[in-house]
Amino acid sequence: MNDLPGSAGRLDVVARCINAAFWRSYGIREDVVFHTILHGPPEPPVYIRLEGTRLRKVSPDERNIAIFIRKALERMRQGKEVESTPGIFVSRTHFGQLLKEYRDRDLYMLDEEGEPFEHVRMGEKPFFFLGDNMDLEEEEKELLEEYGATPISLGSASYLSSHCITVLNWLMDRINNGNIF
Amino acid sequence: MNDLPGSAGRLDVVARCINAAFWRSYGIREDVVFHTILHGPPEPPVYIRLEGTRLRKVSPDERNIAIFIRKALERMRQGKEVESTPGIFVSRTHFGQLLKEYRDRDLYMLDEEGEPFEHVRMGEKPFFFLGDNMDLEEEEKELLEEYGATPISLGSASYLSSHCITVLNWLMDRINNGNIF
Repeated sequence: MNDLPGSAGRLDVVARCINAAFWRSYGIREDVVFHTILHGPPEPPVYIRLEGTRLRKVSPDERNIAIFIRKALERMRQGKEVESTPGIFVSRTHFGQLLKEYRDRDLYMLDEEGEPFEHVRMGEKPFFFLGDNMDLEEEEKELLEEYGATPISLGSASYLSSHCITVLNWLMDRINNGNIF
Repeated sequence: MNDLPGSAGRLDVVARCINAAFWRSYGIREDVVFHTILHGPPEPPVYIRLEGTRLRKVSPDERNIAIFIRKALERMRQGKEVESTPGIFVSRTHFGQLLKEYRDRDLYMLDEEGEPFEHVRMGEKPFFFLGDNMDLEEEEKELLEEYGATPISLGSASYLSSHCITVLNWLMDRINNGNIF
């Protein structure tokens, strides 16, 4: 826990993304569900889902979030999904399975060369796909295209995934409050 | 270093703000200067300034950033500013002194009840003031008002300071690229 960036799968990156996805000044966003597929050793992939409505006891600092991710990794069982701690679910799910399960949602993939977000009509329950510090893999992008995901861009600069999530949450707040860009 | 949220002055909050202020996917924002005044024990206030042009070796995770802040705290000397590590400066500076030094800049203070940011004409070299997890203190706000700081709002929700900084950087990128809201 003292070297999150050196850990398998860059747990620090995942922890920052989770912080960005859920926290506001007072409490967490209950309407957010965060999915991550970890590809680090020893046995990838591991799929972890965090549900805002059920999440408890986690605090917003990287180390604490990483402790809960570690618990999920330790408690994973083959063949069925486990709720490792309240609101955190872990299983062996591949990217393709995840995408198939959520294919009816409005899918968006972050892509610097995609449509500027302000030209895109955002669905009611959007599902955003982002790469980690290494970007989405080519075959993941192709699969997303097959499922009709819309590539959207937050601008020409290349931002950290966690910062993209912060901006997306903020933009969704604005859209939900009736502010159009 | 294993309990940043429990440390004096919530070093985890400061570390996340510094991450938000400087990092992009490839390298750090050289045009950013981040100032913080720490009020934790044993001997407040401690003023720390990070300059993007000179910052070296720091990585974006909370723990690593906190290590550099700790070094700054250890190397502080009375009566003169010290560059504790490249790009990080530490001294005993009060809020009032800081404000006086930068009084010629375009000053903005984040305030949920301020002007919506999109109605505010942003200066070329804006200087934003934010509170930490406890918000700015009343007397700090009053002093900012005396110096003519414009209260601006990022929306009616209450966001973490680090998330506000991420959004402000993103908005400044947009403004600098000619996108007006």
